[in-house]
Amino acid sequence: MTRIHVGISDLSRQTGVSIATIKYYVRLGLLAPGRPTGPKRSEYDDAHAHRLRLIRTLREVGGLGIERIGRIVAAIDDPRMGRHDLYGVATRALEPDAAVGAATDATIAADAEIAAFLDKRGWIIRPEAAGRRELAATLVALRRLGRTYGTEAFEPYADIADRLASWEVQAIPASEPPGIAVERMVVGTVLFERILGALRRLAHEHHSRDAGSSDPDDPAPNAG
Amino acid sequence: MTRIHVGISDLSRQTGVSIATIKYYVRLGLLAPGRPTGPKRSEYDDAHAHRLRLIRTLREVGGLGIERIGRIVAAIDDPRMGRHDLYGVATRALEPDAAVGAATDATIAADAEIAAFLDKRGWIIRPEAAGRRELAATLVALRRLGRTYGTEAFEPYADIADRLASWEVQAIPASEPPGIAVERMVVGTVLFERILGALRRLAHEHHSRDAGSSDPDDPAPNAG
Repeated sequence: MTRIHVGISDLSRQTGVSIATIKYYVRLGLLAPGRPTGPKRSEYDDAHAHRLRLIRTLREVGGLGIERIGRIVAAIDDPRMGRHDLYGVATRALEPDAAVGAATDATIAADAEIAAFLDKRGWIIRPEAAGRRELAATLVALRRLGRTYGTEAFEPYADIADRLASWEVQAIPASEPPGIAVERMVVGTVLFERILGALRRLAHEHHSRDAGSSDPDDPAPNAG
Repeated sequence: MTRIHVGISDLSRQTGVSIATIKYYVRLGLLAPGRPTGPKRSEYDDAHAHRLRLIRTLREVGGLGIERIGRIVAAIDDPRMGRHDLYGVATRALEPDAAVGAATDATIAADAEIAAFLDKRGWIIRPEAAGRRELAATLVALRRLGRTYGTEAFEPYADIADRLASWEVQAIPASEPPGIAVERMVVGTVLFERILGALRRLAHEHHSRDAGSSDPDDPAPNAG
C-alpha cells in the first residue's frame, strides 16, 4: 500500500465522502484518526481511503445502517478473527431482521422441507440463516397458488448456486487484507445477485424467440 | 380440462378469491361471465378457476396492478398472438416503469458498454429492456466505488444465465394452453430469481468455511 499523505479536503475529494461525514466516522471509531501535523491539521493515507470506500460500499450497495457497519468494521480490526468468522459477521449483517410471521402448518412444513433439502446436499448452514426462511416462503407461495412444487424443483438451481459460490469464494485471494476481502464479498453478494437476475431475464427474452422449437431431450443446465 | 361446473361460492372457496373480487374481475372483462342457470345464478368451470389462479399469480408473485394484468389477459385471449409475442407482453408488464434519471457521461458510457456486451454475445434484446438499464446501473455503482470493473466481469454470469434460460424456456411444453404457459413464465421469472439468489447466498455460507484453501487453478463455474 503506497503511503501518500493528504489533508482532509483531499481525502474527501478522493473518496466522495464529505468532510463532516469523515469526522463523524472518526468520532464513532469507524475510521482511525489522522496523524496530527499541526494545530487543527491532520494527514490521512491510503488506509483511510480504503476504509472510507468500504463504508460507502456497505452503505450504498449493502444498504446497511451505521450500527451494522460498526459491527463489520470492528470484526475487521480484530486480529483474532479468521477469514471465515469475518465472512460470517458480514453475512449476518447483510441479512434482514427476522420477520416474525405467525407459524402456520404450511410454514412449519416448508421449513422442515428446506432443512431436509439442505441437509441432503450436505450444505452446512446456520439454523437462523435468512435464506432458509426465504426458500420456505417461496414454497408456501407456490402452494398457495395451487401448485404442487416440492424442493426437487430447486435442485437445478442449487447445483448452479453450488458451483458458482465455490468459484466466487475461491476467487478472493487468501492473501488479501481483511477489509478488501469483506468489501469484495459484499459487492459480490449484493451487486452480482442483481447482475445474475438481470442477465437471466435478458437471456429469457433472447431464448423465448425460438420458444416454438422445444427439445424435450435437452439436459438440465448443470449437466454439461 | 375436466368440466366440473360449480356455483360462485364454490369457485371462491376453490381459488381463495372472494366473491366480490370475482364479480369485479367479470365486470372488468378479466374473467368470462359464468353460464346462467337461473335468475341471479351462474355456474363456473375449470377455465374460470385457472384464470383466477393466473390473476392471483400476476398480483401476488408479479406484484402487478389491474391495468397490467388486463394487458396480459387480453393478449392471452387474442388468438392471433404467438407464443413469443405473448412472452413479450408478459415480460414488458413485469418490468418496472423506466426511471427517468439524468443521463451523465458515466451512464451514457455504461449503456454503450452493455449494448456492446449483449451484441457480442449475440443476444437479441429490445433496446428498452429494463435489464439493460439495470446492468448499466451496477457498472456505474461499481465505478463510483472506485473499482475498475468492466463488462468482462459479467461473462461467467452471462454464461450461466444463457444456459439456464435456454433450459427454462424449453421446459415449458409448446402444447400448453397460453394462460398456463404465461403463469409458469411469471412464476419462473419472479420466484425462481428469488430462489436462485437465496441458494447462492446459502452456498456462499457453506463454501466460505473452507475459504482458506484457495485454488487459483479452479476454472470458472461454467467451464465444466
